[in-house]
Amino acid sequence: MPPQPAASSQTWSQRFETALHPAIAQFNASIGFDIELVEYDLTGSQAHAQMLAHTGIITPDEGDQLVKGLDQIRQEYRQGFFSPGVDAEDVHFAVERRLTQILGDLGKKLHTARSRNDQVGTDTRLYLRDQMQEIRAQVREFQTALFHLAEQHVETLIPGYTHLQRAQPISLAHHLMAYFEMAQRDWERLGEVYRRVNVSPLGCGALAGTTFPIDRHYTAELLNFDGVYANSLDGVSDRDFAIEFLSTASLIMMHLSRLSEEVILWASQEFSFVTLKDSCATGSSIMPQKKNPDVPELVRGKTGRVFGHLQAMLVLMKGLPLAYNKDLQEDKEALFDAVKTVRGCLEAMTILLQEGIEFRTSRLAEAVAEDFSNATDVADYLATKGVPFREAYNLVGKVVRTCLAANKLLKDLSLDEWQTLHPAFEADIYQAIAPRQVVAARNSYGGTGFEQVRQAIENARQRLRQD
Amino acid sequence: MPPQPAASSQTWSQRFETALHPAIAQFNASIGFDIELVEYDLTGSQAHAQMLAHTGIITPDEGDQLVKGLDQIRQEYRQGFFSPGVDAEDVHFAVERRLTQILGDLGKKLHTARSRNDQVGTDTRLYLRDQMQEIRAQVREFQTALFHLAEQHVETLIPGYTHLQRAQPISLAHHLMAYFEMAQRDWERLGEVYRRVNVSPLGCGALAGTTFPIDRHYTAELLNFDGVYANSLDGVSDRDFAIEFLSTASLIMMHLSRLSEEVILWASQEFSFVTLKDSCATGSSIMPQKKNPDVPELVRGKTGRVFGHLQAMLVLMKGLPLAYNKDLQEDKEALFDAVKTVRGCLEAMTILLQEGIEFRTSRLAEAVAEDFSNATDVADYLATKGVPFREAYNLVGKVVRTCLAANKLLKDLSLDEWQTLHPAFEADIYQAIAPRQVVAARNSYGGTGFEQVRQAIENARQRLRQD
Amino acid sequence: MPPQPAASSQTWSQRFETALHPAIAQFNASIGFDIELVEYDLTGSQAHAQMLAHTGIITPDEGDQLVKGLDQIRQEYRQGFFSPGVDAEDVHFAVERRLTQILGDLGKKLHTARSRNDQVGTDTRLYLRDQMQEIRAQVREFQTALFHLAEQHVETLIPGYTHLQRAQPISLAHHLMAYFEMAQRDWERLGEVYRRVNVSPLGCGALAGTTFPIDRHYTAELLNFDGVYANSLDGVSDRDFAIEFLSTASLIMMHLSRLSEEVILWASQEFSFVTLKDSCATGSSIMPQKKNPDVPELVRGKTGRVFGHLQAMLVLMKGLPLAYNKDLQEDKEALFDAVKTVRGCLEAMTILLQEGIEFRTSRLAEAVAEDFSNATDVADYLATKGVPFREAYNLVGKVVRTCLAANKLLKDLSLDEWQTLHPAFEADIYQAIAPRQVVAARNSYGGTGFEQVRQAIENARQRLRQD
Amino acid sequence: MPPQPAASSQTWSQRFETALHPAIAQFNASIGFDIELVEYDLTGSQAHAQMLAHTGIITPDEGDQLVKGLDQIRQEYRQGFFSPGVDAEDVHFAVERRLTQILGDLGKKLHTARSRNDQVGTDTRLYLRDQMQEIRAQVREFQTALFHLAEQHVETLIPGYTHLQRAQPISLAHHLMAYFEMAQRDWERLGEVYRRVNVSPLGCGALAGTTFPIDRHYTAELLNFDGVYANSLDGVSDRDFAIEFLSTASLIMMHLSRLSEEVILWASQEFSFVTLKDSCATGSSIMPQKKNPDVPELVRGKTGRVFGHLQAMLVLMKGLPLAYNKDLQEDKEALFDAVKTVRGCLEAMTILLQEGIEFRTSRLAEAVAEDFSNATDVADYLATKGVPFREAYNLVGKVVRTCLAANKLLKDLSLDEWQTLHPAFEADIYQAIAPRQVVAARNSYGGTGFEQVRQAIENARQRLRQD
Repeated sequence: MPPQPAASSQTWSQRFETALHPAIAQFNASIGFDIELVEYDLTGSQAHAQMLAHTGIITPDEGDQLVKGLDQIRQEYRQGFFSPGVDAEDVHFAVERRLTQILGDLGKKLHTARSRNDQVGTDTRLYLRDQMQEIRAQVREFQTALFHLAEQHVETLIPGYTHLQRAQPISLAHHLMAYFEMAQRDWERLGEVYRRVNVSPLGCGALAGTTFPIDRHYTAELLNFDGVYANSLDGVSDRDFAIEFLSTASLIMMHLSRLSEEVILWASQEFSFVTLKDSCATGSSIMPQKKNPDVPELVRGKTGRVFGHLQAMLVLMKGLPLAYNKDLQEDKEALFDAVKTVRGCLEAMTILLQEGIEFRTSRLAEAVAEDFSNATDVADYLATKGVPFREAYNLVGKVVRTCLAANKLLKDLSLDEWQTLHPAFEADIYQAIAPRQVVAARNSYGGTGFEQVRQAIENARQRLRQD
Repeated sequence: MPPQPAASSQTWSQRFETALHPAIAQFNASIGFDIELVEYDLTGSQAHAQMLAHTGIITPDEGDQLVKGLDQIRQEYRQGFFSPGVDAEDVHFAVERRLTQILGDLGKKLHTARSRNDQVGTDTRLYLRDQMQEIRAQVREFQTALFHLAEQHVETLIPGYTHLQRAQPISLAHHLMAYFEMAQRDWERLGEVYRRVNVSPLGCGALAGTTFPIDRHYTAELLNFDGVYANSLDGVSDRDFAIEFLSTASLIMMHLSRLSEEVILWASQEFSFVTLKDSCATGSSIMPQKKNPDVPELVRGKTGRVFGHLQAMLVLMKGLPLAYNKDLQEDKEALFDAVKTVRGCLEAMTILLQEGIEFRTSRLAEAVAEDFSNATDVADYLATKGVPFREAYNLVGKVVRTCLAANKLLKDLSLDEWQTLHPAFEADIYQAIAPRQVVAARNSYGGTGFEQVRQAIENARQRLRQD
Repeated sequence: MPPQPAASSQTWSQRFETALHPAIAQFNASIGFDIELVEYDLTGSQAHAQMLAHTGIITPDEGDQLVKGLDQIRQEYRQGFFSPGVDAEDVHFAVERRLTQILGDLGKKLHTARSRNDQVGTDTRLYLRDQMQEIRAQVREFQTALFHLAEQHVETLIPGYTHLQRAQPISLAHHLMAYFEMAQRDWERLGEVYRRVNVSPLGCGALAGTTFPIDRHYTAELLNFDGVYANSLDGVSDRDFAIEFLSTASLIMMHLSRLSEEVILWASQEFSFVTLKDSCATGSSIMPQKKNPDVPELVRGKTGRVFGHLQAMLVLMKGLPLAYNKDLQEDKEALFDAVKTVRGCLEAMTILLQEGIEFRTSRLAEAVAEDFSNATDVADYLATKGVPFREAYNLVGKVVRTCLAANKLLKDLSLDEWQTLHPAFEADIYQAIAPRQVVAARNSYGGTGFEQVRQAIENARQRLRQD
Repeated sequence: MPPQPAASSQTWSQRFETALHPAIAQFNASIGFDIELVEYDLTGSQAHAQMLAHTGIITPDEGDQLVKGLDQIRQEYRQGFFSPGVDAEDVHFAVERRLTQILGDLGKKLHTARSRNDQVGTDTRLYLRDQMQEIRAQVREFQTALFHLAEQHVETLIPGYTHLQRAQPISLAHHLMAYFEMAQRDWERLGEVYRRVNVSPLGCGALAGTTFPIDRHYTAELLNFDGVYANSLDGVSDRDFAIEFLSTASLIMMHLSRLSEEVILWASQEFSFVTLKDSCATGSSIMPQKKNPDVPELVRGKTGRVFGHLQAMLVLMKGLPLAYNKDLQEDKEALFDAVKTVRGCLEAMTILLQEGIEFRTSRLAEAVAEDFSNATDVADYLATKGVPFREAYNLVGKVVRTCLAANKLLKDLSLDEWQTLHPAFEADIYQAIAPRQVVAARNSYGGTGFEQVRQAIENARQRLRQD
């Protein structure tokens, strides 16, 4: 079978330029945003041209010329000489039109055995694949920043909260490593979703495949895809991969929003657990002590944006019959903005951790010593002295109430006072209720005990080496 | 009290340029998108300057100079000579910086008794107010397009559906007027929400008001606001107005998505109820009969986008403590994109109705005659002939089954056949089950009877005159 | 025209019981949740029966019997004797079936000139209308609780925040009144949306009206609807009213989530601005000082739930062709749960304000005196002493830095120290920077100055009298 | 160290019953919905009791008694004798209270070294894990139903659409297998997410681990968890697993909504591609030909509900500081309802495919022969006859226009007419444009060619054997 043309967009566009209402042409055009895909379009087209030559659909020489023509457009684009306007409709047609200017009629052969439906799907996946690799590397950097902070703060104590009420002093490293764990799941998810992103729809045609003897596995291999879509209708209409990415991105943002909330709290005068450095906060010359935590605030604020894109894409797909529908053109801007948002937020938060935040260790040391979050350890103490647990337990309430009445903390009670409350108390009670000991004692697996925390840090070190 | 300076953004920004991490500066900056507000910022600033002079906080001459300086920036912007970069941080500072270049130290007085918190709120409301007026006018145009189509199609019959099953022939005008009614509610809502958008936060300061003897009602009047915020903390942190707009916009999009779905169905070969014209559809030279309904597909696809922005803004506000938080910077892009989307969709759908769609009346006439949607009218007929309703009703099922068995429609039964089924049938049965009569008979208020539809069109004509 | 039957659900259900797959019957049935509408269904049906008699479609005696039969079902329901199972499919059929047991064939006449499509729309609106009145009253109670707290705390100072950084001391009443203002908008919105909820679809039939000489305005009047749907297709397929309610409900929840966040912060040990009372907080016997702010946490947590329902309903309606589609059955559970959630949250938060929260005024008094949020007032002071503003302004930064270096607050500087910094300082500087004066001085309209706050409270008193 | 008590909920609840405001108690209580977890709570508690004995924290005999006591409650529950009211607050306390009634003070030992925070996390994961296994099996059944239909319809042709415009006849099996592929991804995702659901938080305590020498890996093994949370703060506050499930559920619903939309279209009179059977559709006795596609309509309608739950959960988590917050109580209802919805929809759609839908093959055969979707094959034909592709391609437009003018289809042209258009046409043109050949020719990998489709079915057969 000799080389043949596919239905070309130009043919249609001859009519386009004369007849389409200008406002409708503007409304339909995607070139304003899909130009972001231009290099991926060129790459995908080069693989397609090579395959056409490889399978004999075009000659080897034609294949070479097409690849070189596409290279030329890439150079032009990088040098700023390729910037198609709204008359180009979309990036695919813009490239084809320019290619035909360069190569004449041969340029039109590029679209043989291909449709814009499989082409745009290919471009989008190539783009997202690259971005996901970048994001995954950024998650690792974020984890590394957490890890380095944690390493420094194994023995720094910080109040642990439930209901934003102080519940228990904990190791600051343990607190930071909770975010490391969240990020670890993000990293894993990105890897899993990647495998469903990195599947080639190229060759699915408009919806049903093609009569040409193409080799889809060949293009997939050239483009480093992990596989090819097994059903052409699915291949041109599937946007699961985009939704999965947006779900993953939403979880990343949710995690960042939690850390952001905490940094904002910590930086408040009431908490005063951290100092924000000038490089990462904005301030006021008239109140030099004031530092606005803009970065975590913005990150927290941008969270909804990504949730919104996820919702938008789900709504987009709801109830769409097979196969390609023009609605699908709407997949790109949400994706681009989510990518940009997640990348910006990961970068900013990583910088914040690396150089923008300083824990006020003396303030933290005071904080863990100024409350009754060691009260349960008094019961533990008595129990180890053989006091029946019910009695021990009831006594603690009484001890705390005694302190509150006297405006004292547990550590402020004299040994006499302790022994008045119960004869089993001895001088070692002070050690037992010291915050450091309270922390050390929670040595169950995954707990805040220093031994556990050190082990967790070692494990993290291993995991950071993975890729 | 003599004129005094407010905490100026420049003062802070002196530090900004040297110390802020470049990636963080980039992350924090809003100039990339809030430049869209520049003319509103200038207008709001001019009113503020006039008020400062009016209240004696600055001299009349200073006021005049500030107003003129701001006019000059407006001219520069319109001529393309004012395009601040990321170093300007945001549009407010960009304007102030340029003003200070023009006027020297006087430029800095503009920010007296004002904060960026109330300023950005003012700008956003001025912007949204204008856009909502435009959108409201576009809704009226959309209604007018529906109205004109309806006027032409009172007597055109079209199948009416429930469950996408044909249920009842109806007047096409009646069908179109259902969308007119939806749009009428959109128009009303825009009017109601407008009243809560058009409230001035100017003078709320950073959060607590100001020590300067400002006159907030004076600026509100200059800027044609309908009122002023009564509580300064609320004034700087309220974004209800944006969410309300996005809710209203979501409803508009939802309505358009329903009409879009119908146009897409109607344009399918299976329905063939409409022909899309070349000016509003894309096609294929190789299949000249094929017309892709890109406009309604894109509109349907853009629906989720606006729903997503609504969700994003709700999430943004969830759990934010008083008063201003940097998160609020994220309100603008969602708003701008929703405005652009709704405006584009209303315009495209209006053009589609005005000149892009043609109802295939002969096909519609066939359609309403080719099914059993007139079956209930047979029961009505018998009842009017005195047949007890239960008997009449049971008979209809039998009649339809008879027809199905014989592969006939009701109209295809001979009078003999009718009379065999029941002696009460007479020659007037044919008239009774003719689609036109079936439609005419539903003459209850708001029904599809022609009399009702004509009345509805008259009412619509009145409403279109409202503003 | 004599009385005639409409297509009755029973007729269909005869087939239902034998043929429908049991799992499908279960899947389709709505009786499990729409039983909540039963009293509204009875009320709507009684009005319909009265109208049928009024217009002569049935006899007056038939009308009376139907009304009485429906009354009997209402009594049975209230006494727990009417609890239909899944075989009843939905509440409408359950009522009709019971009515026919009571009245025989006459019971079937009730459905004359009516369809389940307009019937369920009527029931839902009657339900929502009642609930919205209750919610509106609850918003007033919530505002009243805020108002009473505000009245007590005009002169209580609390730090005012931007970016969760202390920016300015303010009146606690001013802070509370910001929430009063938000709630005022909620109250207004409920009133506006109510007008679009309270419109009767009764008589729209399945989609196209009816051949019976019904009087839709008569039933609307009996049911206290403000108007009737003007287009039958719109009447049976419109769910704008539900979405508008959910938008309004989302804004209420968003406001409550902000107040919740603040109460949670205030109740933390770090802030210690409030004490939660036992009646509204849960605690621990071993740590008697600890109080978990469950109520505001749950309210904050329930926020997303209502946002989710709003999105669910928007998605439900996206792209639905006219007129009725079974999808619409899904409108009810989201609505019911949103109503229940908003009512529960408003009630709980109101109780919390009324009796569950106590401001720790001594702690607040300390708080406003322990920072530099009065720094701008030093510049104001100098300016009033005739120091050029630029000089005054630059000096403040220097003063604050001096204090920070000496670990002092502004109030801790001796007059000597002040005068060393600038000779214009005199003994009245202490009064000028006292928190009370700092607050009092922000007397611009809507500001935190006490005069303004008292005026705002007076205005609120007036507004609370509105209904 | 001897056995010791943990802070018990009873102790707290002694105060609860007397002091908590009844409306607040009601508001806080979760027993109304978390009773659904009761069996999982018992199972988790039994493992915990066994571990306490295993590690010597309690005696072996105490362990046995606790396990037996919990067994007794399970029996009571199954027999309907355990139905705690709102005074029980939540399912965990309800169980503990009953256990203490049965075992006396020993019952209270169960809560040693455990907190409600890790307990509820354990219960929820055990529940979700079970449900996900069920859902995964249901996805396989759904795939099997698609597979069986596809097997029967390899050679049944159906129009293939883009933009809901007929683009190309395809194999019906190919169309159905597109949904098989979507479901395959759902199945894979469920498997991946399961691994992150099936991780044990038991032993994380309230937030920081415990001082007891527990063995978390032991309970994890008893409960068949795949792993344990490595960080206790993360363990009690992580809800990623729930969000991931909701994302996966949203994709399932989105896929089902697409199939639903198609079935609704196919069942319309205009398409008439399928007949719905009585067991799966509702109808009307008066219009026996009418069948309402309630199942796919409801499924489509329920889609938004699951999307809404996903958003609700994301919003719930946004900005929550570590560790446990009461907000998290709100995770359950969304999860329960999503599980119920997805399971109901999968079941109903599977039944629909299995026995509720019949393809009207004669109508389909007509459909694929009645349009110009074979036009591109004319160009292919000419090209194989050596006509230069540009000439061939231009000719096709002319041929179609000729047909349209004559109101003919391509197949209706006489050989004379063909040859007048171009001499290269021969008698084999009729075969070349026959729909069957048009389909067969698209034999590229994943295309609609019969050979490809048969291969795809074989592959599916293999995959269905996987588990």
